[in-house]
Amino acid sequence: MKTEPLIIGDYTFESRLFLGTGKFGSNALMHDAVFASGSELVTVALRRVRLQEQEDEVVSHLQIPGVHLLPNTSGVRTAKEAVLAAQLAREALQTNLLKLEIHPDPRYLLPDPIETLAATEILAKEGFIVLPYINADPVLCKRLEDVGAAAVMPLGAPIGTNQGLQTRAMLEIIIEQSAVPVVVDAGIGAPSQAAEAMEMGADAVLVNTAIAVAGDPVAMANAFRMATLAGRIAFEARMGAVSKSAAASSPLTAFLAQE
Amino acid sequence: MKTEPLIIGDYTFESRLFLGTGKFGSNALMHDAVFASGSELVTVALRRVRLQEQEDEVVSHLQIPGVHLLPNTSGVRTAKEAVLAAQLAREALQTNLLKLEIHPDPRYLLPDPIETLAATEILAKEGFIVLPYINADPVLCKRLEDVGAAAVMPLGAPIGTNQGLQTRAMLEIIIEQSAVPVVVDAGIGAPSQAAEAMEMGADAVLVNTAIAVAGDPVAMANAFRMATLAGRIAFEARMGAVSKSAAASSPLTAFLAQE
Amino acid sequence: MKTEPLIIGDYTFESRLFLGTGKFGSNALMHDAVFASGSELVTVALRRVRLQEQEDEVVSHLQIPGVHLLPNTSGVRTAKEAVLAAQLAREALQTNLLKLEIHPDPRYLLPDPIETLAATEILAKEGFIVLPYINADPVLCKRLEDVGAAAVMPLGAPIGTNQGLQTRAMLEIIIEQSAVPVVVDAGIGAPSQAAEAMEMGADAVLVNTAIAVAGDPVAMANAFRMATLAGRIAFEARMGAVSKSAAASSPLTAFLAQE
Amino acid sequence: MKTEPLIIGDYTFESRLFLGTGKFGSNALMHDAVFASGSELVTVALRRVRLQEQEDEVVSHLQIPGVHLLPNTSGVRTAKEAVLAAQLAREALQTNLLKLEIHPDPRYLLPDPIETLAATEILAKEGFIVLPYINADPVLCKRLEDVGAAAVMPLGAPIGTNQGLQTRAMLEIIIEQSAVPVVVDAGIGAPSQAAEAMEMGADAVLVNTAIAVAGDPVAMANAFRMATLAGRIAFEARMGAVSKSAAASSPLTAFLAQE
Repeated sequence: MKTEPLIIGDYTFESRLFLGTGKFGSNALMHDAVFASGSELVTVALRRVRLQEQEDEVVSHLQIPGVHLLPNTSGVRTAKEAVLAAQLAREALQTNLLKLEIHPDPRYLLPDPIETLAATEILAKEGFIVLPYINADPVLCKRLEDVGAAAVMPLGAPIGTNQGLQTRAMLEIIIEQSAVPVVVDAGIGAPSQAAEAMEMGADAVLVNTAIAVAGDPVAMANAFRMATLAGRIAFEARMGAVSKSAAASSPLTAFLAQE
Repeated sequence: MKTEPLIIGDYTFESRLFLGTGKFGSNALMHDAVFASGSELVTVALRRVRLQEQEDEVVSHLQIPGVHLLPNTSGVRTAKEAVLAAQLAREALQTNLLKLEIHPDPRYLLPDPIETLAATEILAKEGFIVLPYINADPVLCKRLEDVGAAAVMPLGAPIGTNQGLQTRAMLEIIIEQSAVPVVVDAGIGAPSQAAEAMEMGADAVLVNTAIAVAGDPVAMANAFRMATLAGRIAFEARMGAVSKSAAASSPLTAFLAQE
Repeated sequence: MKTEPLIIGDYTFESRLFLGTGKFGSNALMHDAVFASGSELVTVALRRVRLQEQEDEVVSHLQIPGVHLLPNTSGVRTAKEAVLAAQLAREALQTNLLKLEIHPDPRYLLPDPIETLAATEILAKEGFIVLPYINADPVLCKRLEDVGAAAVMPLGAPIGTNQGLQTRAMLEIIIEQSAVPVVVDAGIGAPSQAAEAMEMGADAVLVNTAIAVAGDPVAMANAFRMATLAGRIAFEARMGAVSKSAAASSPLTAFLAQE
Repeated sequence: MKTEPLIIGDYTFESRLFLGTGKFGSNALMHDAVFASGSELVTVALRRVRLQEQEDEVVSHLQIPGVHLLPNTSGVRTAKEAVLAAQLAREALQTNLLKLEIHPDPRYLLPDPIETLAATEILAKEGFIVLPYINADPVLCKRLEDVGAAAVMPLGAPIGTNQGLQTRAMLEIIIEQSAVPVVVDAGIGAPSQAAEAMEMGADAVLVNTAIAVAGDPVAMANAFRMATLAGRIAFEARMGAVSKSAAASSPLTAFLAQE
């Protein structure tokens, strides 16, 4: 079943499920999970890429037809560090796609709104397709859009917690107002939560921990693939309203009265 | 991707999505939605079946290979009425499958625990495969099992409200304790909610309103098909735990420090 | 601040907070917590009362002016056992008030709807003021009312879990439909949850674990006293509606434009 | 019952309930609600104050012993406008307390993180006691603290929606990390929600719409007073943990077995 394609910068995606590649038990498992997920965009932490070496183990396992790499700047703490990291990533991986992550906070890994806005402005001008990872802040999302972000990536819950869409009330406003794609990133811990984000109208979701730490990561990747697509189809098929009072789907006239 | 089959009585199902057939705009649309859903068990209200006529419009539209009919007793208010309705249904539709619905309450259509237990005991003895629709009451579920229910069908929320798993805390206990399949019935309003029920370990879900009233019921049926399967795969693949504190999926060591 | 009194049977209560008396560190602490709570109705498990002895330790600590005892039948598993227990309780404690608890389930202590309905009918005829503890089942509540229950006590969540109003969707219907007082019992773990039940229109709440296991049970009893009253006042003062879009409480005209 | 006092800048408060003064039906009603609430800090929108006139109607109705005014900058859209507004407010109301609100967004009135940080830094240096109103962003809260904010005021939900603590997951982190008082502002629609914020460990709450639009604003102010205090007492009294499985508060040994 076909759904509308997703366009970010000059890339077009059929799949609306992005994958993170950390925490997998092995590179082979990571490869198989990415393949099963149907994802066309996978993040890779720049720190994991051996920049000077010809045969990088992580990157070589992600050479899958149709799959684009999205380097992320995980580990940087300021706009300045992020800009330098982004330039190294572009050179090493030959892509202008960039997931911008700036989190000075070592415990919850939450993003810094000020540094992220500053770095987005600089990097967008330098030709990067910038996808900033941010708190679910509607005003910040509009400002990022104004300085050239290609998409916004608000968090659903703190990274790695599997808590789901804790920021739902703010995500709804972000989705309503955004002129660029909205990718819900972080906190999605179950296929049902990926489907829920898509039903709300999010343009894509990014999942990592929930797949990587599952008992069977490849099967879980497949489950996320289907649930994300199901959520998108439901959004396009226009769901019914939630109501307070019941409405019978079966007729209520007394069964025996009319026999 | 294969999941464990579901066995109820002497029937085996690959699909864990059951469909209700009320509220569709036309019988043709109903047929197409059932087909798209992949469901192998669809409920039909006995009142909608013209028992004496050879060519019943509703039933004839549900003659789909692999699809079983599950007559329901919607409209009855007592155990006595239910037993009579069940016997008529068996004769008319030539099946011993029965969804037992006894709801004296015309507003919220909530089931009566006392009458339902009494009717289940009688009908099970008469050879019916009884699936009683009930409130999410863990003790009642065990008693129904004791008197011969082939499955239990606790509600997620009042019928037709699309509110989702409002009774989640009780459903968890029911699923943990039940020796017969648990089918979450009523209230499921979005594919994400069907997936959520399956992730919790429910054996199946029954959906009607959310599909029938969607802008595009056939597409929505397909979305529910995928989401239900995704939830089941996730359950079998063992999901990771929910945690309070973040855990980075990307490494945290400062990016530039080691270059 | 005065609120409407609560009438159950021929008793009138100013306080809408009922207290359970289990789990306290000592009888003295129990006494002080009951006093601080302002409660006028406290449950006591019949098993804890030494029926033949003149000086029962538990009961003597609950001899507080204005406080009525509400014996409960905790520990019985059938209607027959409950009726016998009720008669012993009436004789021992000289009261016709009775909290009817029938839970065959040793793990979650959830009530049995069938036995509870049968015992309520018998005991109401014998002149007891019966307050049955039940699952949040709207149809069962109406049936209990029909056979003479003086109030209904639906659970918010399994006993002792402190999970709050997990059955909220069903409680709303029960409150809307009930002709007798609705007392939310079990699961209330924080003063905010007691307030929430009262704001919904519940007539009273029963709290035990949350007070008994607090770091400072007497202070916590006081907190529940205030929160329950606050919730009732809010209900009587008619709360505003929940809305999706913001409405400024401060004027929005640009500050400097008009200077 | 005494609770720990709250200290912000060089002010000490017994009450942890702050009040907004918009939307009241009349100034007399506003006065009576403030009085009933027990609040010692009430916000007033600078735009409502007629700066040059001697007898301002709003301000004169807030001349209540023990009540401090907290002028807010509602209506400004940039740091620059905010700084000018703050200076006018200080002069007009003779206070260095300032609630900093910068919201360029006319629909949801959500705050701008970048402008708010910039203005906080300037105003703190100019001697203001700055309480910035912000999204529930833990990193932003720490940065505001670093530039001199006297407290932080994260929102619970969009202003005026009465939706409660929608941002709870982020509020928990903010409360855990903050070195300055955390005041939950906006979205609190019921006394139970004020209590819930206090139970989580918030230092105070600010309420306006829920009181101003109630059927009886004075009674509702009283309800919020009690609920806020109840929540604080509960926090200081240390609440019990939430658990999954039940724990009986009454003894479970079979009642009749031992008679």
